[in-house]
Amino acid sequence: MSPENSVGVVASQRVRFGEVLRLRSGAELPGFELVFETYGTLNGERSNAVLVCHALSGSHHVAGYYADETDNVGWWDNLVGPGKPLDTRKFFVVGVNNLGGCYGSTGPLSINPESGKRYGSDFPLVTVEDWVAAQARLADHLGVHTWAAVIGGSLGGMQALEWSLQFPERIRHAMVIASAPKLSAQNIAFNEVARQAILSDPDFHDGYYAEHGVVPTRGLRLARMVAHITYLSDSQMAEKFGRQLRHGEHKFSYDVDFEIESYLRYQGNKFATYFDANTYLMTTKALDYFDPAYEYDGNLAAALARARASFFVASFSTDWRFAPARSREIVFALLHNRLRVVYAEIACGAGHDSFLLDDEHYHALLRAYLENIAV
Amino acid sequence: MSPENSVGVVASQRVRFGEVLRLRSGAELPGFELVFETYGTLNGERSNAVLVCHALSGSHHVAGYYADETDNVGWWDNLVGPGKPLDTRKFFVVGVNNLGGCYGSTGPLSINPESGKRYGSDFPLVTVEDWVAAQARLADHLGVHTWAAVIGGSLGGMQALEWSLQFPERIRHAMVIASAPKLSAQNIAFNEVARQAILSDPDFHDGYYAEHGVVPTRGLRLARMVAHITYLSDSQMAEKFGRQLRHGEHKFSYDVDFEIESYLRYQGNKFATYFDANTYLMTTKALDYFDPAYEYDGNLAAALARARASFFVASFSTDWRFAPARSREIVFALLHNRLRVVYAEIACGAGHDSFLLDDEHYHALLRAYLENIAV
Repeated sequence: MSPENSVGVVASQRVRFGEVLRLRSGAELPGFELVFETYGTLNGERSNAVLVCHALSGSHHVAGYYADETDNVGWWDNLVGPGKPLDTRKFFVVGVNNLGGCYGSTGPLSINPESGKRYGSDFPLVTVEDWVAAQARLADHLGVHTWAAVIGGSLGGMQALEWSLQFPERIRHAMVIASAPKLSAQNIAFNEVARQAILSDPDFHDGYYAEHGVVPTRGLRLARMVAHITYLSDSQMAEKFGRQLRHGEHKFSYDVDFEIESYLRYQGNKFATYFDANTYLMTTKALDYFDPAYEYDGNLAAALARARASFFVASFSTDWRFAPARSREIVFALLHNRLRVVYAEIACGAGHDSFLLDDEHYHALLRAYLENIAV
Repeated sequence: MSPENSVGVVASQRVRFGEVLRLRSGAELPGFELVFETYGTLNGERSNAVLVCHALSGSHHVAGYYADETDNVGWWDNLVGPGKPLDTRKFFVVGVNNLGGCYGSTGPLSINPESGKRYGSDFPLVTVEDWVAAQARLADHLGVHTWAAVIGGSLGGMQALEWSLQFPERIRHAMVIASAPKLSAQNIAFNEVARQAILSDPDFHDGYYAEHGVVPTRGLRLARMVAHITYLSDSQMAEKFGRQLRHGEHKFSYDVDFEIESYLRYQGNKFATYFDANTYLMTTKALDYFDPAYEYDGNLAAALARARASFFVASFSTDWRFAPARSREIVFALLHNRLRVVYAEIACGAGHDSFLLDDEHYHALLRAYLENIAV
């Protein structure tokens, strides 16, 4: 459990922010807590801090493992550690559970000070912009004025992009991986099916399931199953599962016939045991709403004009959720503004989830880019 | 309601077959009924009959409308009629509701003679092969020894292909449109999500919902929503809905924000009012199981060697459910056997559902092919 280049045992920290946070929806949070982890050491110039933003189901636990839970390895552990591409001997790396999350930061599972009960669906919808505003308070708390880099995949990449727009002077490098400048109608459609699965689960109770002592597991399970299809490529699914039969024959029942069915059920069931339904719902909405060009009549180049960071943009050939063309939209808009951008389209068969894997070329690119960041 | 080239008012017919039908699952049906419609007139040589096979949610009502329901126009009315590509002045066209269906043929909604109650989930799973075997009895009943053509899109195309294998001497032309020789893992995955939505609906009651006086509408609704995403192309969805907001602004709630959400909810709700859940489940299984190459170690060319028909195979450029490559698999296997095949890859933006539309080039191709069929 402790390979030589692991950051090793880590511990989560928690910080409370007392000042009111006005959200994009117009709602206000009187204050909030964020849980986070850090790896490596902030240097004297405070110039080596890197923020890792998580995607839909990620958390602040990016690397290492817990003393009492050595199997619980961070979700991007293959990237972060001494000698790894995001090298903790050089960088001070920060992982944070986003506002509204279900891993300890203030969210629907938290106690609403006004009612003394869990927020449930009274927790206001938060957006990518809100997350970044909250993350900025964490940066202040850590004494980080300017991030050397903000990095994320998928929804995490949207946060990196948003950092470059909301705080152009506080981010030197935005690393936007397997992401998109906004969701397509098809992307929204998949999110909507997932939401309807949860919202229509009789155990959802309008979001106050905690008060009823239940969890809308059926909805969460379906939401994860349908999302999971979009994380994998058609070709990878064909290669990994094909039409392989679980029991060597057709069962002529609704039990598992094909291995892919077993896999999806397993993923769905597992997810339903640990993820919060309200957090899932609001996170899909954050995805749907993200659209920096919205206030610029859809002109992404105009929206990105205020960015000052250097960009690393990467996409994966078999990603059909956020296909390479979506990354190219970002790249073209950056180039239009004569911003510095490195773009890589990586041949990798694993679809959208490629950004989590340690594909050799992908990691070599990340390593090269991160090595060139001055601290 | 009666444009000049409509077949006009039609009426469904019903026929009962008393002989036991042994199904591929090993189960036996003591007898069964099929509802069907016919358009045009069977000629003296009985050489002009065309069978139209329906896909997942289709029925025997292919063309025309009912006297007491003039809005209820057949699902392929744009194809079938006097002067239309499948010209009823030349052909005797037959539409049939498949065994296990929910439009009147014997299926889960029928009364099980053994129990005096509706079959529900006691109705045995039927396969594409079983459907074709049942359709053959209908052909006998109609006095049709050999179909001039069997035509279908998607799952309907699989039936046309199966006809050429199960009854090589009884079909002169197999018209296989927007289809595939078997489902991919991703195809199965989408079906599995739809099934789990229905199976996990508390109103499903293990398939005996009729006895409880309820319908698993939540499950049916979700099943239809997720399936609908796969029927449309990404580009068409973008063009038709894009990120268009229903109310001109973000609602910051789980009400409808984007038009695509409204569309999917509408489609799901509508479907849940008329389609039977057990039929849906078994039909997705029929799709999953279809694999003529299965007993030939996956060698499709070997599986198709016994076909004698001429083939018309067509696919649509933006169909990602059954992409053109899937049709090409069929074409290559046919060519390997030196069978006659016309193949068209049609540039049409409407995704899988293109086969239902009257795209100009598509219909011109169908017309040309059908005109050349001797009767």
